[in-house]
Amino acid sequence: MKYKLLVVGTMAYDAIETPFGKVDKILGGAATYIGLAASSFSIDCAVVSVVGEDFEKEHLALLKDKGIDVSGVEIVPGGETFFWSGRYHNDLNTRTTLDTRLNVLENFDPKIPDHFFTPDIVMLGNLSPDVQLAALTQIKNKPKLVVLDTMNFWMDHARESLDKVIAKVDVISINDEEARQLTDQYSLVKAAQMIHEMGPKYVIIKKGEHGALLFHNNEIFCAPALPLEEVFDPTGAGDSFAGGFTGYLTQTGDISFSNMKSAIIYGSAMASFTVEKFGTENLVNVSHQAMSDRLKAFKELTTFEIELE
Amino acid sequence: MKYKLLVVGTMAYDAIETPFGKVDKILGGAATYIGLAASSFSIDCAVVSVVGEDFEKEHLALLKDKGIDVSGVEIVPGGETFFWSGRYHNDLNTRTTLDTRLNVLENFDPKIPDHFFTPDIVMLGNLSPDVQLAALTQIKNKPKLVVLDTMNFWMDHARESLDKVIAKVDVISINDEEARQLTDQYSLVKAAQMIHEMGPKYVIIKKGEHGALLFHNNEIFCAPALPLEEVFDPTGAGDSFAGGFTGYLTQTGDISFSNMKSAIIYGSAMASFTVEKFGTENLVNVSHQAMSDRLKAFKELTTFEIELE
Repeated sequence: MKYKLLVVGTMAYDAIETPFGKVDKILGGAATYIGLAASSFSIDCAVVSVVGEDFEKEHLALLKDKGIDVSGVEIVPGGETFFWSGRYHNDLNTRTTLDTRLNVLENFDPKIPDHFFTPDIVMLGNLSPDVQLAALTQIKNKPKLVVLDTMNFWMDHARESLDKVIAKVDVISINDEEARQLTDQYSLVKAAQMIHEMGPKYVIIKKGEHGALLFHNNEIFCAPALPLEEVFDPTGAGDSFAGGFTGYLTQTGDISFSNMKSAIIYGSAMASFTVEKFGTENLVNVSHQAMSDRLKAFKELTTFEIELE
Repeated sequence: MKYKLLVVGTMAYDAIETPFGKVDKILGGAATYIGLAASSFSIDCAVVSVVGEDFEKEHLALLKDKGIDVSGVEIVPGGETFFWSGRYHNDLNTRTTLDTRLNVLENFDPKIPDHFFTPDIVMLGNLSPDVQLAALTQIKNKPKLVVLDTMNFWMDHARESLDKVIAKVDVISINDEEARQLTDQYSLVKAAQMIHEMGPKYVIIKKGEHGALLFHNNEIFCAPALPLEEVFDPTGAGDSFAGGFTGYLTQTGDISFSNMKSAIIYGSAMASFTVEKFGTENLVNVSHQAMSDRLKAFKELTTFEIELE
């Protein structure tokens, strides 16, 4: 029997400019990347999201073909899909948002399908914390693990609701700047300690090209990012990470700290595929062999011998 | 028989301001940190440097007590020791140089003692590339390994001489911004490839709190920095890293890529001690037990299980 992963998040169309090229309208959104990354694993995965009537049939079909249950994706008649446009600067670490049109996302009222009322793991993609809360309250029984992704925007504009979600989740995944903003602590070790006190037993701090840190009580795990010759488009890297992380945890059904470390490596590998091409282009074509080679690369990258006494 | 490590570099007095405190005049300089870090290992270590008549007897005695050969440290009668003053900003990743007085460093003509004409490993600390070249030409026989540290200042002001030194060394150790400046490449993978072509077979790119990368042909090793609750004073972190790196390589006499990875971890551990207190305060008191515990922490920080096929 396969374990169940429930993903709640946005589906979107993105316009992206990087130093390497430009696309006007490609498939994007947190739930899209999370779902596609998670669908590599042997799990039952459902996505809860909202799109407009303009959302292409082929894009829903793409998710379905990957075995993702899209019965929780609401299609709003006459509505338009959430649209985001951004430009990455030369270093690819910073970006300017050019346009954000919430469209159907503005009144998103998530509806979890009956057959996903008892998921094993819940992944809340970056989204309004009120919507994340509305999704969480529909779930019967406590899942094995609830994982939260969020961003600085909600820290600025919905801190009270955000704090409520944070108090309810087991794992939070944010980047280094967001961890510092959330806690007013520059030291990431101290920031993680403060976030532990807010609720989450596990704190993941993503550092882009510098990898990610996982904190659990006094234990720390440091995962590298794969050094790449070219990062083509960073969009969706964090979501692909979240999809690889939760996909692996759901497949194995093991939420020990030790297995979470492995899951972080799977997430990092997924992110490394995503950034090599525009949007979801690379992510939808990750072969079993490519994944296996990349995991081997992560192992080689980090292995060293020290004689300990 | 112990192997020989020759260290060429500055000895200095520093005035340092960090968000945590201020010191007006403490022992500093690249060769000081490198020598102190390297002296933890079972090696013969000599320092070649220059100081003024103002240099405290107790500071020379400190190096001697650690078993460092200081017969190559020239004391210029009536001269004043190189002085550097800087202020670290709140993030501790950036600093402003407030004052640099070269003093006796301005006419530094390095003289390697006869009994160190055939070192096994040479560590050229950050210094004018002309002085580094002048030191290298005095060495008889090719050493097992020559390691170079340098900085952006020499890229801006002495690029021609710098290129000559780079062409003569086996290992270069610089930070990420310097690697980018040296090569005009943002991607560190590409930057390392270009630096390989300039001479060094091994390229170390230091990333401060994000650790360090070691490149050798197509192999990459990624070492984490130890996540610390407080970084008190980053001065000397890179030099302590270089001292731990070359000290371990000299002790083991093994310059394979595999052993270089271990050496990077020893270097990172040394750096983690240095930044916990002002100047060399912590570095001079690193016990065998403390080092062993820290190496264990690095192992725990990076170990994960992945089933590879």
